Formats: sequence, C-alpha cells, structure tokens
Amino acid sequence: MIENPYYSPEFHGSYELFSLGDFVLEEGYTLRDCKLAYTTFGELNEAKDNAILVTTWYSGTHQIFRDAYIGPEHALNPEKYFIVVINQIGNGLSSSPHNTVGPHAMSRFPHVRIGDDVRAQEKLLREQFGIESLELVTGGSMGAQQTYEWAVRFPEKVKRAAPIAGTAKNTPHDFIFTQALIEAITSDPGFRDGWYASPLDVREGLHRHARIWSVMGFSTEFWKGEGWRPLGFASEDDFQVGFMDAYFEVMDPNDLLCMAWKWQRGDVSRLTGGDLGAALGRVTAKTYVMPISEDMFFPVRDCEAEQKLVPGSELRVVDSVAGHLGLFGFEPDYMPQIDRHLGELLETPA
Amino acid sequence: MIENPYYSPEFHGSYELFSLGDFVLEEGYTLRDCKLAYTTFGELNEAKDNAILVTTWYSGTHQIFRDAYIGPEHALNPEKYFIVVINQIGNGLSSSPHNTVGPHAMSRFPHVRIGDDVRAQEKLLREQFGIESLELVTGGSMGAQQTYEWAVRFPEKVKRAAPIAGTAKNTPHDFIFTQALIEAITSDPGFRDGWYASPLDVREGLHRHARIWSVMGFSTEFWKGEGWRPLGFASEDDFQVGFMDAYFEVMDPNDLLCMAWKWQRGDVSRLTGGDLGAALGRVTAKTYVMPISEDMFFPVRDCEAEQKLVPGSELRVVDSVAGHLGLFGFEPDYMPQIDRHLGELLETPA
Repeated sequence: MIENPYYSPEFHGSYELFSLGDFVLEEGYTLRDCKLAYTTFGELNEAKDNAILVTTWYSGTHQIFRDAYIGPEHALNPEKYFIVVINQIGNGLSSSPHNTVGPHAMSRFPHVRIGDDVRAQEKLLREQFGIESLELVTGGSMGAQQTYEWAVRFPEKVKRAAPIAGTAKNTPHDFIFTQALIEAITSDPGFRDGWYASPLDVREGLHRHARIWSVMGFSTEFWKGEGWRPLGFASEDDFQVGFMDAYFEVMDPNDLLCMAWKWQRGDVSRLTGGDLGAALGRVTAKTYVMPISEDMFFPVRDCEAEQKLVPGSELRVVDSVAGHLGLFGFEPDYMPQIDRHLGELLETPA
Repeated sequence: MIENPYYSPEFHGSYELFSLGDFVLEEGYTLRDCKLAYTTFGELNEAKDNAILVTTWYSGTHQIFRDAYIGPEHALNPEKYFIVVINQIGNGLSSSPHNTVGPHAMSRFPHVRIGDDVRAQEKLLREQFGIESLELVTGGSMGAQQTYEWAVRFPEKVKRAAPIAGTAKNTPHDFIFTQALIEAITSDPGFRDGWYASPLDVREGLHRHARIWSVMGFSTEFWKGEGWRPLGFASEDDFQVGFMDAYFEVMDPNDLLCMAWKWQRGDVSRLTGGDLGAALGRVTAKTYVMPISEDMFFPVRDCEAEQKLVPGSELRVVDSVAGHLGLFGFEPDYMPQIDRHLGELLETPA
C-alpha cells in the first residue's frame, strides 16, 4: 500500500464504497474485501426503473462524469434518472494495487478482466439498490468495453446501451498501443518491478507514458490546429507538461498497469467461445454505437464493424477534432452531440 | 567511433563514398571530411540530362531502393535513366555519429538539417558527375522532406518531383511522435547520454522504439487484417520480434537520433521566412504529391494541404493498408502504383 493523495475526495469529490466481500476473479485469484467506489446522482424511484449506469475509462474516475456529462442540462439528467457511476477496479478509488494490503499489494495485484468489473457492478446495483434493470448503460473507451460486456452478459437487465469510443473486442492495434504505454512505465529503473517506494520514483516513465498518449490520444488535426490553445496553453510543450504530464504523473503506476492489462484483453466473445457475432447477437438492448470521428485507435470503421453485429443498433459518430481524448468534453461542440445521441436513445422505447 | 557490422556492404551492397571536405552545417558546426555514401544505377548520357535522384528515409539506405524500387521493370528504370541514390547524413553509411572520430563522435555529432543534406547532395551530383539538372527527385518520408527541399531550394535543377508519404513542413503531431521515438531510446540506462560502449547496451530502448513504430508505422487495419501473415510470421509478436525489433536493433542509437532531430525540423519555409505558401510557390518542377492512404502520421489531408500550394501539382494517393511502412514495398499492389505514378510523371513534359 502506498499513500497517494490523488486518490481521495479532495481530488475526486465524495464517493461511497461498496464491499464485495471476497471477490473471485476470472483469472482464479480472490480479492479479499474487494471494494467498488461509486457515486450517485438523482433519486431511484419506487419502481426502481429509472437507473442509469455509467462506467469509467482508463485512468478515469466518476469525477469527469460529474463535471462534464451529468446535470439537469444533459441527457444524463439526475432530475429524471438515478445515475450510478461505478469506478472500475484498479482505477485507484475502487480496489487497486496501490490501496491494497497483504499478498495482493502493489505489483502482486492479480489480473482483473472487464467481466470481473461487470459482475461486481451488477452485484453492487442489485445488493445496494435492488436494481434489476437499467434504462441505459454507457461509458467511453474502457467504459465502452464494460458497456458491451453488460449488454452481452446481462441482456435482460440492459434496456439501452451506448458504448462511446470503444470496442466489444479489443483490436490487435489497440493491444500493441497499450503495450507501448505499459513499457514506457515498466522500463523506468525507478519502477523496480512495481516495488517503487513512491510514484514519484517512476515520474519519468509516467511522463513518457503521457507523451505516447499525446501521439495517439489526440488527432493529427488537433495538433495542427493548435487545439490546445483554447485550453489556455502557450505551446505544444506547455500543453504536454501542464495537461498530459500533470494528469498522469499523480497516478499510481501499478494502478495504470492493472487497467492496461484489462483493456488489452477486453473481449465479449469470451462468453461465446470466441464467436464475436454470436456474442453481439445476444444483445437485446437498443444500442447506439458512438465512435469518435478522429479517434486514432478506436477508428470509426472498427466500431462500425461491431455495430453491424448488434441487432437493431445504430451507428452514431461523434465529430471531434480532438480524437479519442475528446472524451474529456473540452470541445464546445462535443457534449451537445453526446446529449443529442443519448437523449434520443433514452426516448426510444425499449 | 563504434564498429557496427550492419553499416557495411555485406548488409547494404556496394556503395561509393564522396568526400565533401569540411562541410559547414546550417547550425554552425563544421563536419570535417564529411562523406556521402551513394550508389548509382544505369549510365549518365552525354547530355547529362537523364539523371534521377533518390533520397533516403529515417533508418533507410540505398538498399531498399535497389531491392524494391529500381530495375528495368520499374519506372525507376536504369536502362533509361542514371539513378543516383544518396544516403542521408546520419544514416550510418554517410557520415554519422557512430562512424565519426574526433570531437564530433557519438553523441557530440552536430545537429544536421534537411537543407544540409540537400546542399551536400547538390555538390555531389555537380562535382562528381557534372549533373546540373534532374529529370526527377523522389523519396519517401524523410526522403520526401529532401525532395521538397530540392524543389524549393534549387527549382532550376528539378524538372519533376515526387515526394512520397512525407511533408514539406513537418507537422506538430509528427514532432511529438518522433519525440516519443527519441525518448524510447534515450531513457534506456544503457544509453548513457549517448556514450554506450555498444549498441547492444541500448537494445531494450531500441526495442521500445521499434514497438512505437509498430503502433504508428502500420495502420489499425494492417493489424486487424493480420497483414504480417503473408510476410511469413505466425503471430503479432512474432512479427514484432522478427521484423520490427530485428530491423532496428542492429542500428546505432546516435545515428537514429541524428535523423530523428532532422526529421522533426524539416521545413522548406525556413527558406522564405516562415511562409510555406511562398516556399512551395517557388517550385517549378512538375510535382506529384504521393501520400499513402492509411498513413497514421503523414495523413493524406496534411499532404493534400501542401499539394495545393505547389503550382501545377497533382495529388496521387497511394492505396496501402500497411500504412506508412508500406514504403518497404512488401504489398503486392504497392509497387505497381508507385511505378504507374512515377511513370506518368516521367512521361510528362517538364
């Protein structure tokens, strides 16, 4: 266990913890007293049929959804819906390498899969709130992986699904991209096979990791058009130091690696013996597949290929010059598109 | 100086050396007894008006052109043209960090710019062969940078130009991509600020550098479609180990860094006070701008934006699922496209 002030309510706002007890992972290890950090917005009605689940992406927490996606002016409207944002295992707020004691601490934290998260989330919603049906499951990037997993694993519980900027089955290119991110961290001599005394010992690796994100996370056009300038930076490097490096350098390296391993292996076809068409054919949720137009590593065509396998689904491309990290919602025309698509989806009978 | 058997005729076939004498670089340093390695194909006619110059890309040498691009069955036909392939400074065959002795050895090798290469190449062609006019200048990637530099710097000498998969002014995205490549190498503790005893000391950094090339050098579709399989590999990692790692691990780290610095700063608008339109407006060569359709870091739109600034030019997109490293010519439908475009260009009056 390592004290890390970043993973606290000061940085992320208040949240609750749900204890899963001893949670057995797909890979055959038991996380003792496994906890999910979550936060809710709005009120669950008596029929318990107004719930929305939001899942989190790599390095993300509920905070970005609270700040950018959820509010009375958004489709994710807490005046109408009971919105639960559940932090993925390994993200630093839920059970993660850095906050675990005992045999699974630090780099001994076992491998976690998308399916583990989704099973844990289902248990939380059922046991804590009695929720048996979700009006919508949505999330971006790794959150899209969880969204797909929900729709395939628990089709009877998911009325609508909106995977944003992510895939049901991770692609080979995504795997090697993530591997480059991993190696940027693990190659830092300060990483010491995961037994660093402080995340600061791995700062250079975290910076390299951030810089590879700069290459793939934003589009060529974002950089050409100086898309960082409206965000209040004076140069490309100013943006990288002040935004990208700063964003990642406070995080725990083992936590990032836990998520990276999980991301690399997200694949709903594990539920159907490797048959992706059969897996996505199970989906009964009304589904909008929402890739980002300039995404460098979840390109529209990869998302569209999966969309065609989901019965009754629609492809809703989100235009964003930023690319994948447009997910942060800093472009003025980004959230209006998200709200329009999610709003239309929520109005669709399901 | 470091002995490196990779940089030898055994690996690259025979080549000649041209001595530039003491060559003063744009950055204000003097490379003593600077040498360009070059090779020729075909015969220079008496009028000396059948010469073609081919320039080299990052990590590349004349070898790939000899093996894939030049021959009686290609547009670059040595039965018709006198074809000179000149290795760029820093590529390991021409003067480079690893083969330099004295104060500029190893990591003290001075910064070289695209303009330095082009001035050196012009001198070689003029002094060694009396060539004052070129039927065509062409090259891919950094070779495209040199091609543009030729057409802007010596418009009266270049009748036709074909920059393939590269730009006249490097983009911000390319800069940060290249920076990630650089940092993969320099972060290796074995790099020792460039004073390694052997390139093998930097092998892990070179492997990480190769893996970042895997992410950006090939398209998402190449990986999805297992484009490596026809090349005789059994898995993605087999391809990365056997092709990408193997390709780069024999190279000299300082040599790669010399080229990377140069690549980052390629910009013909340095000749016109920063005005790219004015620089490309100087071009009198008949120019085909030839981006690769799936290029992740020299995307078609960046190349097209420059093409529109070149008087009388045409955009000729080369379709390649491989992406940027389609330049290696391993796709069956790649060279026929190159030959068609270059063939038509060479038949165009200029």
